[in-house]
Amino acid sequence: MADSHSLEALIQALRRLPGVGVKSAQRMAFHLLQHDREGARLLARALADAADHIKHCERCHTFTENTICSTCLDPRRDATKLCVVETPADQSALERTAAYKGMYFVLMGKLSPLDGIGPKDIGLQKLFARATDGVVQEVILATNFTAEGEATAHVIGEALKSRGLQVTRLARGVPAGSELEYVDLGTIAHALVDRR
Amino acid sequence: MADSHSLEALIQALRRLPGVGVKSAQRMAFHLLQHDREGARLLARALADAADHIKHCERCHTFTENTICSTCLDPRRDATKLCVVETPADQSALERTAAYKGMYFVLMGKLSPLDGIGPKDIGLQKLFARATDGVVQEVILATNFTAEGEATAHVIGEALKSRGLQVTRLARGVPAGSELEYVDLGTIAHALVDRR
Repeated sequence: MADSHSLEALIQALRRLPGVGVKSAQRMAFHLLQHDREGARLLARALADAADHIKHCERCHTFTENTICSTCLDPRRDATKLCVVETPADQSALERTAAYKGMYFVLMGKLSPLDGIGPKDIGLQKLFARATDGVVQEVILATNFTAEGEATAHVIGEALKSRGLQVTRLARGVPAGSELEYVDLGTIAHALVDRR
Repeated sequence: MADSHSLEALIQALRRLPGVGVKSAQRMAFHLLQHDREGARLLARALADAADHIKHCERCHTFTENTICSTCLDPRRDATKLCVVETPADQSALERTAAYKGMYFVLMGKLSPLDGIGPKDIGLQKLFARATDGVVQEVILATNFTAEGEATAHVIGEALKSRGLQVTRLARGVPAGSELEYVDLGTIAHALVDRR
């Protein structure tokens, strides 16, 4: 598209974003250059800034600019509970419910043998060390309810139970506000098994 | 997502990209920070570089780092033909056909009264000046075959015909390789009218 080396470089760089192919990258480059150069400069600064300053919390592994994140440092939180999630976005979803006031461990991924992601890649040793600090009593597995999330929960659960910890899993069931008629059968079957 | 100012700033900045909502922006930020920091730095440099160096060709209005783009400077091109397209991506599609060796004028948009985009915003005066340079004999309208692209072609065509230029439009018809049974009726109707 046009005879510009920096434009080609921009399109190629935009394709590093997940879910962005060559057509989307062209559209994004065109939009930024034609209608929003200030946005392009803002994004450039934000990217460089984040790449330089964001590291992982030493306790829970989430993204933070500090050694320990503010959640881990919060004294009002219940340090006897540790909730294991896949990503910061999942943690954020749980936080928005305001129904949980314990600590977190963010895996920053999930076990995925097909993609070559094993226990080392998602820092399970770090999680086991964190969970057996003597304060944590209950570990709540809040990985996603996908095949890989379930497998990850299973592996972590077995390992932590063998270390004498109480391990729970988020309840599976019918989503709030839904009509049974439109809920998939697997979900209804789980809701029946886990009825209370 | 997580307690980081630079992460929040990155997510907000990514949302300036067209077609990127908050969930996509979170996924992009997570991917870059967790799996591709080099990509993040590369994209940052590419954005700043493009925003600083890319301007518009003074003759055809396309993106270029120079005063006049290489297409406009190419002496092997037929300067009697001027093809009007909406975007550099459209120009690039035409170039890939290798079926056209004339000059271009890139509108960098289309007439769109509903979005408040009028003749001034897409540089029609500049196009009229370019087309009436005394060398151009035929103007080929290659705006898109959408409602707005057709309207843009109509406005430009009428104005240039009144200036004594030959104005043509890309042929509408049945796409190469398609079966009539599956072609939409409007396209078949146009192909019938424009039969030759």
